[in-house]
Amino acid sequence: MRNLSLLTDLYEFSMANGFQKDMLETRATFDIFFRKVPDQGSFVITAGLQQIIDALPFSFTPEDIDYFRSLHLWGDDFLDFLANFKFDCHLRAIPEGTPVFPRESLMTVEGPIAQAQLLETLLLTILNHESLIATKARRITFAAGDRPIMEFGARRAQGPDSAIYGARAAVIGGAASTSNVLAGKLFNVPVAGTMAHSWIEAYPDELTAFRQWAKYYPDNSALLVDTYDVLSSGVPNAITVFKELRAKGHEPVGIRIDSGDIASLSRQARKLLDDAGFPKAKITISNALDENIIESLLHQGAPIDNFGVGEKLITSSSSPVLSGVYKLAAIEEDGKLIPKIKISDSREKVTIPGQKQVYRLYRHNTNDAFADLIALIDEPVADQHELNAYDSNPLSVNKVQKLNDFDAVPLLQPVDLNQHASNPLDIQTFSKQAIAELPDETKRLTNPDTYHVYMTTKLAELQDELVNGN
Amino acid sequence: MRNLSLLTDLYEFSMANGFQKDMLETRATFDIFFRKVPDQGSFVITAGLQQIIDALPFSFTPEDIDYFRSLHLWGDDFLDFLANFKFDCHLRAIPEGTPVFPRESLMTVEGPIAQAQLLETLLLTILNHESLIATKARRITFAAGDRPIMEFGARRAQGPDSAIYGARAAVIGGAASTSNVLAGKLFNVPVAGTMAHSWIEAYPDELTAFRQWAKYYPDNSALLVDTYDVLSSGVPNAITVFKELRAKGHEPVGIRIDSGDIASLSRQARKLLDDAGFPKAKITISNALDENIIESLLHQGAPIDNFGVGEKLITSSSSPVLSGVYKLAAIEEDGKLIPKIKISDSREKVTIPGQKQVYRLYRHNTNDAFADLIALIDEPVADQHELNAYDSNPLSVNKVQKLNDFDAVPLLQPVDLNQHASNPLDIQTFSKQAIAELPDETKRLTNPDTYHVYMTTKLAELQDELVNGN
Repeated sequence: MRNLSLLTDLYEFSMANGFQKDMLETRATFDIFFRKVPDQGSFVITAGLQQIIDALPFSFTPEDIDYFRSLHLWGDDFLDFLANFKFDCHLRAIPEGTPVFPRESLMTVEGPIAQAQLLETLLLTILNHESLIATKARRITFAAGDRPIMEFGARRAQGPDSAIYGARAAVIGGAASTSNVLAGKLFNVPVAGTMAHSWIEAYPDELTAFRQWAKYYPDNSALLVDTYDVLSSGVPNAITVFKELRAKGHEPVGIRIDSGDIASLSRQARKLLDDAGFPKAKITISNALDENIIESLLHQGAPIDNFGVGEKLITSSSSPVLSGVYKLAAIEEDGKLIPKIKISDSREKVTIPGQKQVYRLYRHNTNDAFADLIALIDEPVADQHELNAYDSNPLSVNKVQKLNDFDAVPLLQPVDLNQHASNPLDIQTFSKQAIAELPDETKRLTNPDTYHVYMTTKLAELQDELVNGN
Repeated sequence: MRNLSLLTDLYEFSMANGFQKDMLETRATFDIFFRKVPDQGSFVITAGLQQIIDALPFSFTPEDIDYFRSLHLWGDDFLDFLANFKFDCHLRAIPEGTPVFPRESLMTVEGPIAQAQLLETLLLTILNHESLIATKARRITFAAGDRPIMEFGARRAQGPDSAIYGARAAVIGGAASTSNVLAGKLFNVPVAGTMAHSWIEAYPDELTAFRQWAKYYPDNSALLVDTYDVLSSGVPNAITVFKELRAKGHEPVGIRIDSGDIASLSRQARKLLDDAGFPKAKITISNALDENIIESLLHQGAPIDNFGVGEKLITSSSSPVLSGVYKLAAIEEDGKLIPKIKISDSREKVTIPGQKQVYRLYRHNTNDAFADLIALIDEPVADQHELNAYDSNPLSVNKVQKLNDFDAVPLLQPVDLNQHASNPLDIQTFSKQAIAELPDETKRLTNPDTYHVYMTTKLAELQDELVNGN
């Protein structure tokens, strides 16, 4: 495991140097949250916690300290502080796979301010990335319905981690498998794939290439049929080999099409396969797919069984940034907790102060979630069944709602840095259940309904007070 | 260093298993090239070679072999082949920092086909990523003219490698520094940054926060002035502290603005600073910048000295994928080289066959490059000063041009896997020189002129022959 403790913006070290001198004993709470959902969706699938756990606790090697010294920015007292770093931060997080909404804390960090400040970049880099890809995978698998999505994007990822952890996040968000062998090994998720065009080209002709494949993979023969021409060459040659396989007691898997007009090619290929006696041979496609193209192809009735999705998933290319932020929510001095706020000339950017808990509100005795609620951590929300709720979205028209007859379930859980890693497929199962609890109208890919995130009266009043007091 | 040999798509192993049986002695040449430039630019800045060198040679651990065995896809002969992998591939590459154009090989791999096939994903992941970010950085630094760009994007990167190697690529493409301490340490590039809003919020008021900063960084005080209000609070408080600094014999660095309307705020802040006697205090801005916003702000005369650029650089968010591909160009059987081609129903996607060299063509005895030329590797182009050139772009109208009075310089160089890593700043210097040699009209950010990439007569005829022969 690499030491990522230096994956930190310089200014965090510079601030920590000041904090170490001015407020060594002061503890702080930081929140991670986002304001906008990628692709104008209504929710994000949170992911990345396990990678964060694997990267913690922070520590610095003698070599790191030498590097810091070479920058001539800080004195020996701070370098000693870093060399003897005793990690004392406590994280809470919403479990991976949970659908989460703007303005609610996905993760909080409580600890000595000089330490907690240092975690900013690493936590954001990981959470922003994995949550972005899990969210995109949710959209793509939603579009595909019950047809499996295979994650094929490694070669277009933004570097190795983007490929490796992107594959993990894609599985959390709903992908059935990945082509990435390292991700398969690291996370114990299914790996998938057939052949590239180079296999076909390496043999004298397409039929020979298919035959050799079938020889080595008689029960795993998914043949790539678009190297020369799908309908006049690829599918007829595949059918020849499928017949040979069947004569030897094997059933073919199917074909893959990677170029051309997928709707028309898949329909014609389906007919050729059916007519030749292979109605169960599956058609896989893999040409620059995303949720919109998949929705559109299926809307036209294209007979596709599997989708291989590459660059548009692994980079979330239509919306390639999740802008999670790390904001100071409270500091503790002499045992007294002081809530903190970031004011801004844009009302949307004002933060929600204090140490908080996020609740999912269900209609009483059901699994039907209808809203989330942010409360101060010591408010007894879980015992309540009615309250006045203030919309946390400053742009909302209806500011106050009376909510009743609900059950409130807390989402932020303490993080155990020694916790055993869950299999991403199990997180996917959990995620699908959590998504199933949400109103259907929030799940649409285009123009989904807003799911409300409320604040308690106490929190809304605290925010107002701090805005006006500053 | 992590072992990235498993960062490979499953199908490459499946193909290698077949190649190992059918053509163990066959050597192959693969090309890496791209067809489209991100952001509709005219060229890509190639980057990533050093990371590839660091990841090679391939090898597999006993643990990897156990994992392969658990997949039940391949027999012991292939697992033994992997366990005893003797890396025997030869790479050629265009040096990092070079501006490169569609269809020309950025890198070639020659080796036993079962090995060379396995390199596909890893090489593409790295080259596509670093070249994408270097290209974006070139655009952004071009827009900023001689004002320094600081790379600030780690928190919005697509995972740790995207932050770390993205920072390296950003420096290759023109960034002056990065906020990423790990990148600073690994690549020996300048690190930069000031303070976050949390520094201001952690103190009772903004003035106190600024004073404490100035106390610890008297010669490095760049103050973030937008936590409460830039003009009524941030800049006046900064000026108070700057005066105190000057009284003690220090000169302030300047201010940073991270929100609001940058053009108007920077102008008013400039006036306040000038009027207070700080005409040399620099203004840094850092709010969701890219090349278009920077061009637009500078066009309006905004008095900005430095730009901190985040998510739009580190993810190349307006164009987040460079679609480099890895295509079989030739195989060698019984000492005979057989050029290979991938046909497609789209003329644009037909590959250029054979083992090739790429030349930059300069007007004779000058540094003025006017076109590139792709030739078969054994053609004596460097000795020629005139030839018939065929446009490699199948959509071009003028198919054949007579070129004369030029000097041809080969771009693809053999890769030494033991080569000493160059500093990214030195690669940046080389890159700026190489860009300076190109025609100015190819460098525009919007609608740049096309720079022609030609093929020799011999290569054009070979391509035609293979297209028609298949």
